[in-house]
Amino acid sequence: MNTKKNISVCFTADQFKKYADRKSTVVVIDLLRATSVISTAFMEGVKAIIPVQTLDEALSYKGKDGYIVAAERNAKPIEGFDFGNSPFHYINADVEGKTLVLTTTNGTKAIYNAREHKVITASYINIDAVAKHLIDEHNDVILLCSGWKGVFNLEDPIFAGSLAKLLLKSDKYESNCDSMFASIQLLKSAEGDLFNYLSDSSHRRRLKSLNLEDDTRFCLSPPIKSDIIPILKGDKLVVL
Amino acid sequence: MNTKKNISVCFTADQFKKYADRKSTVVVIDLLRATSVISTAFMEGVKAIIPVQTLDEALSYKGKDGYIVAAERNAKPIEGFDFGNSPFHYINADVEGKTLVLTTTNGTKAIYNAREHKVITASYINIDAVAKHLIDEHNDVILLCSGWKGVFNLEDPIFAGSLAKLLLKSDKYESNCDSMFASIQLLKSAEGDLFNYLSDSSHRRRLKSLNLEDDTRFCLSPPIKSDIIPILKGDKLVVL
Repeated sequence: MNTKKNISVCFTADQFKKYADRKSTVVVIDLLRATSVISTAFMEGVKAIIPVQTLDEALSYKGKDGYIVAAERNAKPIEGFDFGNSPFHYINADVEGKTLVLTTTNGTKAIYNAREHKVITASYINIDAVAKHLIDEHNDVILLCSGWKGVFNLEDPIFAGSLAKLLLKSDKYESNCDSMFASIQLLKSAEGDLFNYLSDSSHRRRLKSLNLEDDTRFCLSPPIKSDIIPILKGDKLVVL
Repeated sequence: MNTKKNISVCFTADQFKKYADRKSTVVVIDLLRATSVISTAFMEGVKAIIPVQTLDEALSYKGKDGYIVAAERNAKPIEGFDFGNSPFHYINADVEGKTLVLTTTNGTKAIYNAREHKVITASYINIDAVAKHLIDEHNDVILLCSGWKGVFNLEDPIFAGSLAKLLLKSDKYESNCDSMFASIQLLKSAEGDLFNYLSDSSHRRRLKSLNLEDDTRFCLSPPIKSDIIPILKGDKLVVL
């Protein structure tokens, strides 16, 4: 097929309805930290991840055989839950073969809003695998940045810029989307030192104030890489 | 007063509800072309501008003594209206003392959405006057980009970056807002040649396809400057 496919970038979970077409592949991005956690948890052997909207919904799985529950609100873990939204909670933890039920401030909402599309999740851990999959699949793609409570954040568009660059390089994609252009420009102005570039960003400051600098470093420049592409099947993310 | 006031940037008219606080001063930006047209029309002597949502509402003023009606949809003028959304329609036209009733695709919607705040409009024509006014007033400010039909556009945030830079330079303003940071970064990557930088942007291409390159040049780098600050009073923009 010679026709190029289209890339759009949506800056917040709330705006997804403006982009929804039920045909495009949607890549959900919540770099700090939900989609980085999702990549990590799958690498550590979880069997499936159920993203849910509410704390109550997540708690209803607590104690069920084979399930672990994780929650985050406003970047903080929540009492009563086994895990939080830090990738380090999952590394070398007893999660193999388990189903993780996860609710976060923004990322799980983005997944929910896109559920009528093919949904995969991306982070710097699996970016190369995701790019390869999208290039092979050759479908229109919407890069869905989770944002922060309905508002633009800086880190998700920068990641969208990284992924868009890989797709454009393949020559199978094009874009007329101003937010994709802006994402690539922001990446360009950050390149080389994403950690410091984001030092004034709202979520980086939020994580810093909670002593979560290691999480930030991990998500921006992960020491691990994964070929696993999480894909939404029904209400569960599973390995593609 | 020593405390710094806050700058936020909202990327689309639709998202304004996330930023609304009924206290901040809202600067509406629709650079290509509504707020540039508004600046131009006031310079040419219009007494007031009534921004309206619908074509029907605008048409209801047609033929009334002292009123002129102008409309634009999808960058095109509309049959039956005296004027469109080009600054050139107003220059040396018979508009002195008239009330202009204006409806456009995005800008008039942004004004409407912000109507419970103090609302002023800005363009490169009156940017210096607007900055001076905001610095003197020293109130929290929301730079409201109109966007395109609910979606991010490139030119409005770049203008927001220009205005935010002037405010930050005064040392009376600060910002924790990722979209303000991004706006200034986008301006920085564009600086020196905004016209060419925007050549791939969606609205610049839209205007180009309609032979409106002169409008684009005028709005990005106007040959005229104005001290007039349009302010919303009731349902009308008047000179502050």
